[in-house]
Amino acid sequence: MLYEINEKALKLESQGKKIIRLNLGDPDLETPPEIIEAAYDAMKAGKTKYSSAYGEISLRDKLAQIHGVKPENVVITPGSKWGVFASMYLMLRGGGSVIIPTPYWTAYELIAKNIGAKVKLLRTELEDEWKVDPAKLEALIDKDTKMIILNNPNNPTSKVMDAKTLDGIVEIANRKKITILSDEVYSTIAFKKTKSILEYDEGCKHILCNSFSKTFTMTGWRVGYLIASRELIDNVTKLNQITINNVPVFIQEAALKGLELHKKLASDIREEYEERATMACKALSKAGLSFTKPEAPFYVFPKRNGLDSEKFTMDLLDEGVAIAPGTAFGDYREHFRISLTVPRTDIKVALDKICEALE
Amino acid sequence: MLYEINEKALKLESQGKKIIRLNLGDPDLETPPEIIEAAYDAMKAGKTKYSSAYGEISLRDKLAQIHGVKPENVVITPGSKWGVFASMYLMLRGGGSVIIPTPYWTAYELIAKNIGAKVKLLRTELEDEWKVDPAKLEALIDKDTKMIILNNPNNPTSKVMDAKTLDGIVEIANRKKITILSDEVYSTIAFKKTKSILEYDEGCKHILCNSFSKTFTMTGWRVGYLIASRELIDNVTKLNQITINNVPVFIQEAALKGLELHKKLASDIREEYEERATMACKALSKAGLSFTKPEAPFYVFPKRNGLDSEKFTMDLLDEGVAIAPGTAFGDYREHFRISLTVPRTDIKVALDKICEALE
Repeated sequence: MLYEINEKALKLESQGKKIIRLNLGDPDLETPPEIIEAAYDAMKAGKTKYSSAYGEISLRDKLAQIHGVKPENVVITPGSKWGVFASMYLMLRGGGSVIIPTPYWTAYELIAKNIGAKVKLLRTELEDEWKVDPAKLEALIDKDTKMIILNNPNNPTSKVMDAKTLDGIVEIANRKKITILSDEVYSTIAFKKTKSILEYDEGCKHILCNSFSKTFTMTGWRVGYLIASRELIDNVTKLNQITINNVPVFIQEAALKGLELHKKLASDIREEYEERATMACKALSKAGLSFTKPEAPFYVFPKRNGLDSEKFTMDLLDEGVAIAPGTAFGDYREHFRISLTVPRTDIKVALDKICEALE
Repeated sequence: MLYEINEKALKLESQGKKIIRLNLGDPDLETPPEIIEAAYDAMKAGKTKYSSAYGEISLRDKLAQIHGVKPENVVITPGSKWGVFASMYLMLRGGGSVIIPTPYWTAYELIAKNIGAKVKLLRTELEDEWKVDPAKLEALIDKDTKMIILNNPNNPTSKVMDAKTLDGIVEIANRKKITILSDEVYSTIAFKKTKSILEYDEGCKHILCNSFSKTFTMTGWRVGYLIASRELIDNVTKLNQITINNVPVFIQEAALKGLELHKKLASDIREEYEERATMACKALSKAGLSFTKPEAPFYVFPKRNGLDSEKFTMDLLDEGVAIAPGTAFGDYREHFRISLTVPRTDIKVALDKICEALE
């Protein structure tokens, strides 16, 4: 359904219609110029050759230092999606199942199905503030369960998992010897402290999946990383050797520059998106929608009882606003996802149209 | 063994020893500055966002025009290796076998084994000028055979397949309904005309795998492409959507610039490598080695009867020269591969040492 929306949006745009695009997680902000210059300098310095399938040691060192792990626990990936795919491919293709709380990022289920893994969905509800119930999670586990995927903060709800719930999930996973793959791509720009899977995990038993896309506005650069056991990192590297080979070194140099500028960049992004979220919440509350207040960029996931969000979303496109129906994130037909990834003036116009269409 | 050689070379270099590296297919020439500038301009123009998993339409259009196919038969990949992996993953992971002539690029067999496909190797010999015998090929085909991989020109022999042999292979493949994956990454810089699989193939039944790495000295940029049936292209794109997402748009813009400069760049590279090859052939002949004259960059694959190339290669490293043993390309212990990917002065020194060590 996300693709249909995008196709229709493109078609309308090609007919000259202005579409405000709140349907993707691709921020309107530009990649900071310092990062672009770092890539350019690296290219000119000849960093355009084959390189290590682990990633550059300078970048792995820096990430290891930031996360308090060893460089051998870090591998650089072409985007966090590759990190998710590679982990699932290596751990689940021989059979086995994965538990995914919903609402979820569609890619998790698509990957699982592609590699032939079984998927068990664990439903969470707005009414419970999107909390995962550890008891329900434990009930889903059987002898085939090899992985639990957490997306913290969550896309589409922008909810940060509370520490107590995470404690409970980790306790179960450890007791049952199940690996948690924790996708934390929104964590460093979250509006509140997000507890990382690494805080539990001196031996890197679990897997942290992260990206430079959201924190440094580098979505199209395709660079992310995994932190995991040395064994898994070695196996991902072997998979890299026969697939993508390496992330271009000049892109890794750009990512390294991003890490140097991290503090300022992250706080600028956080500030801007918190403003946008506040603006959106005000308008959506006024329109009588239910939702949890975003605790991270970039999304709000409101609900209107009885809404058919697929129809609503398609109709709204004709009004010049693209959003994503709740069904793109699991069985959530009454919800829709708004990405606050356009300038505030456009968000305001779009929110007015959304609220009007709901009247 | 290639990795062991590389590890030992790195170790010796870290001890301050100069190693002439003739062990990799990574050319010493730099990426042309026009290509770097094109990438930089694209980055500054904001081409740093998520984009199509098919690749940019401008680049697909240009490639379609060059190869005389439709843009929908083209998908952009992060290097040709991803093209090989994706094709094999989609066609062979459900079972089935692949025929690979040897000597071969190691990645083919590693990929096949990784996805659980059966491999049948088809041996060719220096004494037959590395010709594939179509009758022997046909004898290897059984009901499980789904793919034949051709590498034309070949790594490590630098031999271009003669048109008659290729005609014979294509006839068999068409008759038996088997897909040929033709990896032609060295073809546009070959010293003689290489007949492409596309010349047989109006409907894109077979698969062409190509890369910008060798032609434009862009090895570390990770950009290549597949030309195939629309169905396979759509399926590779779906795989891209859940793995690498897209090749960075600024890298695709750089590749497009390369295509504009193609004629001059390719002829410069061809000229330089033909000189190097002539130089190498002279020295190797004098030392009494047997080989076929390279018909493409970058390799020579000489033979000395009775040689243990693994031992020879390791010992040669202590003399400051890194080459690859024949066993890295199949069961060719008496052979070794020299990559002519360093400046001529270094090639001369290295050849002297190789010939000396063989005395």
